[in-house]
Amino acid sequence: MATIKEVAEEAGLSKSTVSRYISQKGYVSKEAQESIKAAIAKLHYSPNVLAQSLKTKKNQLVGLLLPDISNPFFPRLARGAEEYLQEKGYRVMLGNISDSEDLEEDYLKVLIQSNAAGIITTHDFTKKHPEIDIPVVVVDRVDEQTKYGVFSDNKTGGHLAAEIICQAGAKEVLLIRGPLDLANNLNERYQSSLAYLQKEDLLIHTSDSKSFKFDKIQSEARKNLNQWTKIDSIIAPSDVHAIAYLHELLARGVKVPEEVQVMGYDDILMSQFIYPSLSTIHQPSYRMGHYAAELIYKIANQIPVEENRIKLPVYYVERETVRRSYE
Amino acid sequence: MATIKEVAEEAGLSKSTVSRYISQKGYVSKEAQESIKAAIAKLHYSPNVLAQSLKTKKNQLVGLLLPDISNPFFPRLARGAEEYLQEKGYRVMLGNISDSEDLEEDYLKVLIQSNAAGIITTHDFTKKHPEIDIPVVVVDRVDEQTKYGVFSDNKTGGHLAAEIICQAGAKEVLLIRGPLDLANNLNERYQSSLAYLQKEDLLIHTSDSKSFKFDKIQSEARKNLNQWTKIDSIIAPSDVHAIAYLHELLARGVKVPEEVQVMGYDDILMSQFIYPSLSTIHQPSYRMGHYAAELIYKIANQIPVEENRIKLPVYYVERETVRRSYE
Repeated sequence: MATIKEVAEEAGLSKSTVSRYISQKGYVSKEAQESIKAAIAKLHYSPNVLAQSLKTKKNQLVGLLLPDISNPFFPRLARGAEEYLQEKGYRVMLGNISDSEDLEEDYLKVLIQSNAAGIITTHDFTKKHPEIDIPVVVVDRVDEQTKYGVFSDNKTGGHLAAEIICQAGAKEVLLIRGPLDLANNLNERYQSSLAYLQKEDLLIHTSDSKSFKFDKIQSEARKNLNQWTKIDSIIAPSDVHAIAYLHELLARGVKVPEEVQVMGYDDILMSQFIYPSLSTIHQPSYRMGHYAAELIYKIANQIPVEENRIKLPVYYVERETVRRSYE
Repeated sequence: MATIKEVAEEAGLSKSTVSRYISQKGYVSKEAQESIKAAIAKLHYSPNVLAQSLKTKKNQLVGLLLPDISNPFFPRLARGAEEYLQEKGYRVMLGNISDSEDLEEDYLKVLIQSNAAGIITTHDFTKKHPEIDIPVVVVDRVDEQTKYGVFSDNKTGGHLAAEIICQAGAKEVLLIRGPLDLANNLNERYQSSLAYLQKEDLLIHTSDSKSFKFDKIQSEARKNLNQWTKIDSIIAPSDVHAIAYLHELLARGVKVPEEVQVMGYDDILMSQFIYPSLSTIHQPSYRMGHYAAELIYKIANQIPVEENRIKLPVYYVERETVRRSYE
């Protein structure tokens, strides 16, 4: 293999200039850079600079394991984690685990081998793998057993969705429960909406959605709207669900929100850009990522943590698919 | 530190049962598993199983560096790469480089240190880093100098968008060029649309968009629609742009496609779910990821590659925002 000296000779430069270029420390003129690059390419010199420079530093990788990055809730969460960690000198690597434990395991192997500084995940694997001793923070799907977690106030969110819909004059409501496989938080919201609705004088229909995929939701929407033709309000478990129902309503010529109101949940970016824009319960996905990153950083650096399970508030975003109660 | 023997004693099981559990090879009853887990937790035994099992294998990590995962074009590309590579036993780790060379460099360090099997990226860094000798495949933003790349036929795409809009009776067209900073492919589409439009008997307005962010596009849309009030057709550089313009048109009470037609580009998932659903040029983002993954796999395993720059076809998806030419 070629040496630095040979590269220097080929480039017609001093060895120290080549070293400066390779270590990226100190000034190297634009021309010299070009000559060195050409020499490196010609001699197939492989300094593995990048790897060398890393070895001298603490490993600065944090893994972020998400069930589905095509669900628009997650990219914002990822962004929140990234922006915090980048400032602290860490990099975030995203793994799509598709709610599969095999995939999760493979990603864990990679992260452990890379000596990751921490892992942010929606699935708490720490009970299954007590031997993993890197800091782990669970986001979104947090339960009582979670050691470190960041989640939003699903109970209040469910309550709020029902309350707003009722204040806007709901008489016959379709309440949709999200797919429950792994995410108990969806059930919490649902139960909380249901409890509120049951105290009111109205007709309630409930439906279990089996999917977060648009086409599946859309066929559920068709079926439900055919079955219950007098619904005047829909409480959806996610914005993705709400947008699929909205499409179906508009395609049928139903006026939204005059004839049927639609309440989303999440406040994904797209919600403000569709027309009519979606009234929804805002989940602080960006802040969830941000707080999870802060927890990881604190644990990894032995900084005392005040709260180990952080509950973030949610709020209603008034847009165009729910009537205003004062109208 | 505790040994396997101590764990076995604590769990009241044989050492070989514990070994089977740890190496995940062979049968261990549900009860035995529980006992071993409890013993591991109690004794703080840290076998680092996951890391060990990996060392015996080839490193199976492929890095996927994308400029922005919140752009809905990319999650599908990621999915395409993942599904191919998972089947081949590789894991994909996603890094969000936000078009920043510093971030890119940090991710490259991490990938090299992790001894990644390959890198899929939208930005060809190989000229800047000739010393990196892992397989690299560029997706989407491929040029003549790219060694291995997968891209879609932007020239045909731009031509097609203009042709369809003209056949549907366009008389006054707004042609929007996407942000050009790093992605020359956007200019190729634009030029190709423009060349087609200029041969027709119609009025052309052009506008340069500065962003892929919704709120910025929306203010551009407001300005343009105020300035040119007689536009009957809009050719957008992406579905995200098209959806922002569509929102603005519908909010103004403009009938789409009767009064103004809107043509998108990309065919992101959301395009079919908004109402009216978006007519657009389909880019094979999933297949782009899939083909890039196949190239990485072949290069990494010394399998001959027939084509090193793969151009994928695009096609028009007829939906509801462009008039049918036979109407």
